[in-house]
Amino acid sequence: MRKSAKRIGILTGGGDCPGLNAVIRAIVKTAENDYDIEVVGFLDGYEGLIENRFRTIRLEDVSGLLARGGTILGTSNRADPFNFPVLQGEDYVYLDRSLQAIRNLESLGLDALIAIGGDGTMAASARMLEKGLPVVGVPKTIDNDLWGTDITFGFDSALSTATEAIDKIHTTAQSHHRIMIVETMGRYAGWLALGAGLAGGGDIILIPEIPYDIDSVVDQVRSRNSLGKNFSIVVVGEGARPQGGDMVVKRVVETSPDAVRLGGISNQLAAQLEGLTNLECRVTILGHLLRGGTPTAFDRILATRFGMEAVHMVARGEIGQIVVLQGSDLGSVPIRDVAGKQRKVTPDHPWIKTARSLGICLGNPTNVPLEEYLRN
Amino acid sequence: MRKSAKRIGILTGGGDCPGLNAVIRAIVKTAENDYDIEVVGFLDGYEGLIENRFRTIRLEDVSGLLARGGTILGTSNRADPFNFPVLQGEDYVYLDRSLQAIRNLESLGLDALIAIGGDGTMAASARMLEKGLPVVGVPKTIDNDLWGTDITFGFDSALSTATEAIDKIHTTAQSHHRIMIVETMGRYAGWLALGAGLAGGGDIILIPEIPYDIDSVVDQVRSRNSLGKNFSIVVVGEGARPQGGDMVVKRVVETSPDAVRLGGISNQLAAQLEGLTNLECRVTILGHLLRGGTPTAFDRILATRFGMEAVHMVARGEIGQIVVLQGSDLGSVPIRDVAGKQRKVTPDHPWIKTARSLGICLGNPTNVPLEEYLRN
Amino acid sequence: MRKSAKRIGILTGGGDCPGLNAVIRAIVKTAENDYDIEVVGFLDGYEGLIENRFRTIRLEDVSGLLARGGTILGTSNRADPFNFPVLQGEDYVYLDRSLQAIRNLESLGLDALIAIGGDGTMAASARMLEKGLPVVGVPKTIDNDLWGTDITFGFDSALSTATEAIDKIHTTAQSHHRIMIVETMGRYAGWLALGAGLAGGGDIILIPEIPYDIDSVVDQVRSRNSLGKNFSIVVVGEGARPQGGDMVVKRVVETSPDAVRLGGISNQLAAQLEGLTNLECRVTILGHLLRGGTPTAFDRILATRFGMEAVHMVARGEIGQIVVLQGSDLGSVPIRDVAGKQRKVTPDHPWIKTARSLGICLGNPTNVPLEEYLRN
Amino acid sequence: MRKSAKRIGILTGGGDCPGLNAVIRAIVKTAENDYDIEVVGFLDGYEGLIENRFRTIRLEDVSGLLARGGTILGTSNRADPFNFPVLQGEDYVYLDRSLQAIRNLESLGLDALIAIGGDGTMAASARMLEKGLPVVGVPKTIDNDLWGTDITFGFDSALSTATEAIDKIHTTAQSHHRIMIVETMGRYAGWLALGAGLAGGGDIILIPEIPYDIDSVVDQVRSRNSLGKNFSIVVVGEGARPQGGDMVVKRVVETSPDAVRLGGISNQLAAQLEGLTNLECRVTILGHLLRGGTPTAFDRILATRFGMEAVHMVARGEIGQIVVLQGSDLGSVPIRDVAGKQRKVTPDHPWIKTARSLGICLGNPTNVPLEEYLRN
Repeated sequence: MRKSAKRIGILTGGGDCPGLNAVIRAIVKTAENDYDIEVVGFLDGYEGLIENRFRTIRLEDVSGLLARGGTILGTSNRADPFNFPVLQGEDYVYLDRSLQAIRNLESLGLDALIAIGGDGTMAASARMLEKGLPVVGVPKTIDNDLWGTDITFGFDSALSTATEAIDKIHTTAQSHHRIMIVETMGRYAGWLALGAGLAGGGDIILIPEIPYDIDSVVDQVRSRNSLGKNFSIVVVGEGARPQGGDMVVKRVVETSPDAVRLGGISNQLAAQLEGLTNLECRVTILGHLLRGGTPTAFDRILATRFGMEAVHMVARGEIGQIVVLQGSDLGSVPIRDVAGKQRKVTPDHPWIKTARSLGICLGNPTNVPLEEYLRN
Repeated sequence: MRKSAKRIGILTGGGDCPGLNAVIRAIVKTAENDYDIEVVGFLDGYEGLIENRFRTIRLEDVSGLLARGGTILGTSNRADPFNFPVLQGEDYVYLDRSLQAIRNLESLGLDALIAIGGDGTMAASARMLEKGLPVVGVPKTIDNDLWGTDITFGFDSALSTATEAIDKIHTTAQSHHRIMIVETMGRYAGWLALGAGLAGGGDIILIPEIPYDIDSVVDQVRSRNSLGKNFSIVVVGEGARPQGGDMVVKRVVETSPDAVRLGGISNQLAAQLEGLTNLECRVTILGHLLRGGTPTAFDRILATRFGMEAVHMVARGEIGQIVVLQGSDLGSVPIRDVAGKQRKVTPDHPWIKTARSLGICLGNPTNVPLEEYLRN
Repeated sequence: MRKSAKRIGILTGGGDCPGLNAVIRAIVKTAENDYDIEVVGFLDGYEGLIENRFRTIRLEDVSGLLARGGTILGTSNRADPFNFPVLQGEDYVYLDRSLQAIRNLESLGLDALIAIGGDGTMAASARMLEKGLPVVGVPKTIDNDLWGTDITFGFDSALSTATEAIDKIHTTAQSHHRIMIVETMGRYAGWLALGAGLAGGGDIILIPEIPYDIDSVVDQVRSRNSLGKNFSIVVVGEGARPQGGDMVVKRVVETSPDAVRLGGISNQLAAQLEGLTNLECRVTILGHLLRGGTPTAFDRILATRFGMEAVHMVARGEIGQIVVLQGSDLGSVPIRDVAGKQRKVTPDHPWIKTARSLGICLGNPTNVPLEEYLRN
Repeated sequence: MRKSAKRIGILTGGGDCPGLNAVIRAIVKTAENDYDIEVVGFLDGYEGLIENRFRTIRLEDVSGLLARGGTILGTSNRADPFNFPVLQGEDYVYLDRSLQAIRNLESLGLDALIAIGGDGTMAASARMLEKGLPVVGVPKTIDNDLWGTDITFGFDSALSTATEAIDKIHTTAQSHHRIMIVETMGRYAGWLALGAGLAGGGDIILIPEIPYDIDSVVDQVRSRNSLGKNFSIVVVGEGARPQGGDMVVKRVVETSPDAVRLGGISNQLAAQLEGLTNLECRVTILGHLLRGGTPTAFDRILATRFGMEAVHMVARGEIGQIVVLQGSDLGSVPIRDVAGKQRKVTPDHPWIKTARSLGICLGNPTNVPLEEYLRN
């Protein structure tokens, strides 16, 4: 290796997400093409950095990677450098191994680390940064709830998969006069459910940000039936909850214990709706289908831009920052500002307004303005 | 209407299935083009015939129908003419309304009925035939378990959807070093799980016809790990069961009650595998995703051929028969021979042999020949 | 009809585009849900308005429309109200029928017209507006070259189709060691070619905005070969042209007349590249494949938002404006400002920078900065 | 390597085809799993065998290969061992290098060669067999015209791609009231055009086996228009030709030289149809799109079965045979019986009958029975 050449490390952390490989490819291509920098990939997120498991990634290794889902580096969504499991005898002890991570980076002669990941990875990166790790972040989440960036790669692909699933389920709903419930991921934010509900033609969309009133849901189903449409599509984010929370769930448990045992908000909702509407309900939980597969064209371009920009940031010395997209422009914000925050759907978001103008039920009574409903 | 013109009725019964609309289209086109026959569609399967709910279907009504999933006639999978629910006061009474169905057909001047459906619809049709209903059958099932025909439309589409789902889940399995369990439909027969397992590159395939030995499953996972492949894809038909049946399930219930409460064979299997392999498991249940969506090219051609042939059979007076595919040729067999029977995966089926030659685990110990294992 | 109710007209003009039906659906749903306005659809763009061919579109007519490509209203890309063909005897005369269009709108009691279309439709609308037609515009183009809006619906779908096509062609290029040329639409602007080239992993991207230097293209192919990659993917916008223009084309015509007779920039380029590199070239022209099919989730949401906003604009009296997207917010600009202008790829657009950082050849010598190259 | 271990060679020849990689994977897995045989892959078809370019393919090399289009071994569709180009000075001489191929196989200690390819590869293999090469064949063609087998892998995938393309083009045809011509591959046999025409809802299907009468085509377009359907989809196999052949083409050349210069039967047809119907025509040539991409589930299973069976055939000593599918069973026939023959669409094929029952125009006058028409 030439003496002057730089080397950087990269890792992918958190849950799987379409576009991770595209980011890796863009990093390697930009590093080679613009800067003649060598790229070392740590395996399985921060785990690999701590345990010194890595491989050099060359141009030929990223050939054909753009269209492939997943990450060739592997990932882990539980590796916390400050509380890291180490086998001692037959049991695990949890140790602060943050310094080990930094030493490994140094001993490999790496000038910086690009950490590609979601909320958890950014939280770890923010703390590692304080410890002295020269890290640059690339945001990743299919849930689109990362603070600081308008959108992240992976979301459009997950949205596309969810929409195709709703398309498939539509014909069955219509043929059978059923209520079909489709549950997307999204524990804290409703972006996926709201987006897929709009794109898939959902009649009712329930998201974590708007606790739902079961009566509003039933009203929508009945109002459709009265118009001769004897089926309904309900799109539910996994974090959706009924208004009144625990008490409502308790009542459902008492009246239909079997359905509730199945767990998940969708199964509870199905039990309630069957009882209240006398219509058959069927539940489909999309789950991990949303994390895999080839990224959409949109996500491939975005992931490529993020990967490229991360290398430019390292080259410009913008350590401690995370790449973001603001409007259609790339920018960056401090990692510590991003960590631990979530971007949620606001009551006046354009998508919410669109849903309401189209007559989609969002789970609140239509005669109460959304803002007022949410205040109560 | 011209005096001499013939009229036939059609209905679609049972669960939703890609290709139903393509059959309807082919019937209407063939009836018009070859015979100048008018087609009347009953709504919601036998329910519509009994309750005299119908619509005339003309050429212009079937435009654009070939590619659309579902059925424009609606369907019902619970309408039994011999035990049909009728509202009396506030309760339902169940009556034998088979004669009403026949009278409705006659009063509309229909020469025959083409019933498109699965096992349940064919069972009802066989009994209606004895009562005097001039019925011709078209077989339909995504499970491919209908007796008498090599294959039915809908199966290839469901297989395609299941395979795409496994493709998506593959990248996540690899990135996370997990066991991913994908459950397909198929309560009685393993065609879907076996086909999707072969096409999606499953490492373990569990089907109802081969009660599985959990140790064989664990061996396969471990053997893959020892080769450096620290993930496995398990494809499970919903009717799959462990060897020893109830006792095994009981043991799982005792050791991991939470997982079992989630119900479904896949969740039980996940609980067992996590315990035995120390690897994370994730379950995806494809369910109704397999019933919807646009049919594949293969299914569109098959559904079109079936629809056309059914009209020719009516024209030739082959009442009481069901269209079948034998090799690549259309044929017909008596409906009464088909009703109530199921086509299962046999131990020497070519797909089973293929799976074994490729080293896929089918849930039995590899040192015991499959035939012998199944005898025990 | 109730006395107070409002009515609005809509039409779709210009080439086919994924999302047109989604706009129509959103207009009808918003009009009904928020304002109780009735919607009348003119057939085949301005042709229908002039010839008074129309149909009322009700809620039930837009069911299932979200996912369907094309437009249920039909379209025409040659209807100019000011120069409109009318049959006289056996020949056509071209007449100014703009006033007839306005009278038809008035006689149907329509308060406004929503015109959904591209450059041509907006040019006609701008002139009709001067004549007194109360028109609101919705921008539409798969080429993404409409001035005033960051993006229009249809582009993401076309990009997705083009990217899938490049994915398919990739494997063949690799297996056969060939140069594969893929031509996208885009007569004036390179958005589709540039986007699909980035998303599909093109090695060379040629767009109308950067006249290409054939030597740079050949250098890229050779440089790839020297790295052991004996295939190349060239993505070409249909409006791409060689530097020096006519003279270069003339030389190609003289040396390989057969290839040139096939027409199209891609076939000329293939003839040149085969001669200069001694590698086989194959051309695929995507053409109309890019205009059809179900819209992507992204386009469905965007088309829905545009349709909704157009109704709100009518309700707010913002006549003469066109809906636009700026960043992630809806806005509006005067139609007359948009008509006749095109949004082109600029030399410093982020996508251009991304392409260059990744080492993609854009058709100019890499040692000359793009800005300087374009000045010459 | 253990002394007793066997080794076999494999190669892929001819045009690219979805499923080639799936065959390679199945061969390697079966060889390893059932026989402990090592597999050596020659690069670029017979070229690699002659030039001794090869690589060992192990289990880990075929991971993830099932879903990937193309062939990791590369292919060549011009390598004839009996007339093989060798550079001498600056020119090529063509030599009989068949013996060299056999010597290379022997010197690598290979017991047999599995040749995966189409007509050309099988013709070469038949001659090599006579020379003493122990070869087993696996049939491959997207055109489905290989003699001896009911179907080959690749066809279902190409059919699927062609059908999706027709789906996309359908909406544009409808929206614009145009005649849309879609040209599929298929120089000698009409399987792809006929299948895609049936599956995509084509109104007119023209295949090489039935020289078309332009008047019949025009009649169909007019008859559709008279029913209010002012668009038509024409699916054309690339080998389709007008009745009367040369004379008809000559007449077209004289009347619309520009269109004809564009070459291809579809462009000629478009020129004729525009003149005769006064409707706009648009042509889309699918070409290489049909050769690439991930194989369908159907093709993955078929390719896997073919690969597995080829290894079993080697193990059983069935040298000189080619794997075939007859009905749903695997079998084999002598390679020499297959070479040089083509399986064409016969006038009484079920698909032809289906097309005619549905009222699809096949290019002959409907009042003349097809058999009689073809006799003239």
